[in-house]
Amino acid sequence: MTGRFRGLMALPLVVGMPALAHVAWGLPSNLRISLAVNVGLSVLGFIATSSIVATLGPTFIKANLRGIDLNKETTKRDSEGNLVRPIEGIAIPESQGTITAAVYILVLSVFIPFAFASYELDRFPHAEMAEYLAAVLTITFASFMGFADDVIDLRWRYKIPIPFLATLPLLSVYYANGNHTGVMVPNQFRWLFGDFVELGLGFYLFLLWLAVFSTHAINIYAGVNGLEVGQSVVIAASVLVLNILQLLRIPEEFKEYRENHMQSIFLIVPFLAVSLSLLQLNWFPAQVFVGDTYCYFAGMTFAVVSIVGHFSKTMVLLLIPQLLNFLYSCPQLFPFIGIPCPRHRMPTFNVADGTVCNSFAEFTPEELKPLGKLAYMILKNLRLVHVRSLKEGQVQMSNLTLINFVLYVFGPCREDVLCCRLLAIQVASTLMCFALRFGLASYLFDVVL
Amino acid sequence: MTGRFRGLMALPLVVGMPALAHVAWGLPSNLRISLAVNVGLSVLGFIATSSIVATLGPTFIKANLRGIDLNKETTKRDSEGNLVRPIEGIAIPESQGTITAAVYILVLSVFIPFAFASYELDRFPHAEMAEYLAAVLTITFASFMGFADDVIDLRWRYKIPIPFLATLPLLSVYYANGNHTGVMVPNQFRWLFGDFVELGLGFYLFLLWLAVFSTHAINIYAGVNGLEVGQSVVIAASVLVLNILQLLRIPEEFKEYRENHMQSIFLIVPFLAVSLSLLQLNWFPAQVFVGDTYCYFAGMTFAVVSIVGHFSKTMVLLLIPQLLNFLYSCPQLFPFIGIPCPRHRMPTFNVADGTVCNSFAEFTPEELKPLGKLAYMILKNLRLVHVRSLKEGQVQMSNLTLINFVLYVFGPCREDVLCCRLLAIQVASTLMCFALRFGLASYLFDVVL
Repeated sequence: MTGRFRGLMALPLVVGMPALAHVAWGLPSNLRISLAVNVGLSVLGFIATSSIVATLGPTFIKANLRGIDLNKETTKRDSEGNLVRPIEGIAIPESQGTITAAVYILVLSVFIPFAFASYELDRFPHAEMAEYLAAVLTITFASFMGFADDVIDLRWRYKIPIPFLATLPLLSVYYANGNHTGVMVPNQFRWLFGDFVELGLGFYLFLLWLAVFSTHAINIYAGVNGLEVGQSVVIAASVLVLNILQLLRIPEEFKEYRENHMQSIFLIVPFLAVSLSLLQLNWFPAQVFVGDTYCYFAGMTFAVVSIVGHFSKTMVLLLIPQLLNFLYSCPQLFPFIGIPCPRHRMPTFNVADGTVCNSFAEFTPEELKPLGKLAYMILKNLRLVHVRSLKEGQVQMSNLTLINFVLYVFGPCREDVLCCRLLAIQVASTLMCFALRFGLASYLFDVVL
Repeated sequence: MTGRFRGLMALPLVVGMPALAHVAWGLPSNLRISLAVNVGLSVLGFIATSSIVATLGPTFIKANLRGIDLNKETTKRDSEGNLVRPIEGIAIPESQGTITAAVYILVLSVFIPFAFASYELDRFPHAEMAEYLAAVLTITFASFMGFADDVIDLRWRYKIPIPFLATLPLLSVYYANGNHTGVMVPNQFRWLFGDFVELGLGFYLFLLWLAVFSTHAINIYAGVNGLEVGQSVVIAASVLVLNILQLLRIPEEFKEYRENHMQSIFLIVPFLAVSLSLLQLNWFPAQVFVGDTYCYFAGMTFAVVSIVGHFSKTMVLLLIPQLLNFLYSCPQLFPFIGIPCPRHRMPTFNVADGTVCNSFAEFTPEELKPLGKLAYMILKNLRLVHVRSLKEGQVQMSNLTLINFVLYVFGPCREDVLCCRLLAIQVASTLMCFALRFGLASYLFDVVL
């Protein structure tokens, strides 16, 4: 474990715990007990995750859930890029997100009685409980499908509709609880649209899109030790801070809003705990891989906490790096644009000095489809890609991922430095999100909660 | 597909559909619509299950989720019992219960809005919705863990606590909804215990035991094509009939009891549909295997529907063959009794005439532990096992499973005939359960609902 990593681990604790304690101080005593149990169970979740991951590693390898770390010296490749060492001995357990997700779901299951135990049975908040259960159900089903994807490699035609359908229980509860589906209109446009636009079904479609997008967005922003879990930890910590800020700002009389943020905290604290525990083992040099299971699990958790906490629009701002990575990737992802996409787009390992550098796609720009040619010209002229000319009109272009872009701008570096740079972008995006949410919003709207 | 199997498939439809239609006729119009949607979605689930299982079979085989049918001619064994044919070509996709469970969960997710759509938002039954969501969550988590067991072969120390913890959400909701935890005392014992015994925590412990037991009981009552799914179909059909009978018997004024049985129907009809769909492909000669996933999924579904429908004690009666199989197996399962347990206890295939017959464990009774010697003497003297003497005091004893017992009593037969005999026992146990529940109960209690 590097010192840099320890700092990263400590950050949420140093910032989060005192703030959470401050919030807890202002809570009614029943919620304070619930929060204490939630934090206590999260600590148990942290311990359980690392101990079970350490124990079950060999079992996963035996079950063929294993991978090879392409960016390490132990893995040599021949001139054509094929592995020349056998898998045995250097295999790393894959899909360890499965254990993380299972521990998380168990923590939330055990937490239920404590979340609602302080209520009398005759004025029990069944609606809140239904929302909590729907949230856990949605995350559980997404994790189940993520694991199925790891094991049997689902095709995209199954992958797209699954988070869509998995979110239905939560949206049904959202509807049944009579939650609003409108958005406030900025002061500057009220002459045109009125004060408030009721989106109705449109809002539900937006939430469905958010669930599908966040589930897959983390999955395609991966390929460096610690990046999947690292970005999730940063986003989760941001969600926690956002909820704490809102609890500090929203006055007591808006009880319902405060309850939404409390519920969101109850869901995100255990997530942060199990993710930090996994990050410890997935950080450079990785002892375990997290698999699609973790990406599905984390992505759906983010969609769910933002729906439960009623900040789904803010969530999109927290996912800006993922959104940029997706948009930047489009020319390689969609066949109708057709820039060639090699099987692996992760960085290339330089055995000589142990750094990672750009990986490239090779093609002849003249032979691209019209849209591909256009995309290539724009990217090249705006200097958004690293282009190297070969003979006979052929070029090498750095692969279209945010990871390659950062390597192109800042140059080759060791894998953990690269990961820290990418996580710094994630933190910057959080700061910008907060600036927009709390700064610009007060300029655009009269009342901001 | 054999004619015998078609008859089996048609049975629940022929008996169930008219009865369900009769019940539907007496329901308020909103519930009638919900039931119609439930049946419609179940039909879609039936179609989806068989079509996805047929499509994804090769993908499962590629992912190493495959098995060999030991009781078929295609599989030859040498004198030491080892397979002499390579796996390729005769491998059958395993864990197809995963698809069944995923389709079931999606059907229930899509159904939620329809289950509760007819209510006005201001008198919305949040408590019922929480119970429904907790039920689906519990089943989803059990299926997820079943799949994990299929893929990475979990150890018993993880297997036992998992259904235990997975049931907590449902029990929390059961508690929050103020459900009763007492049992009526039979007339004959009221002088001793009073009219009603409040079990409190004891009742919750019983429900937890039921969840753990039913999850594992189906798993160990397996080894013949169609048996895991067949027994589940019989139990599910019995649950459906029980719910229908109760709806016909319970007067309108006991609204709450009627609602419990309606909820139970909403959960069991889709289960019956996806299971029948899987049974088609798992029936002799099996084209697919169902895996631990199906056993966990089915077992937890039975626990859940009986908790939601408030007939958990009746459920134990429906699981009598599973209970007998477990008790009969104990001397081989527990090392402290110590009758030797071979790796496979399934029947042996007789290539000459295509039948299956007893499989045996070999040991010297003199060398058994005291408890093992006692168990062997009892079983032998009561003629509950098939014993063959070998030289030097060694014996061969038929393995202690209900399957072997039935083969011992009725003699060798083709695999599908054996399965039908075992399912007939399951049906007989249902009839006995109904006789007890509706016959004997009126003798023991004054008021029976």
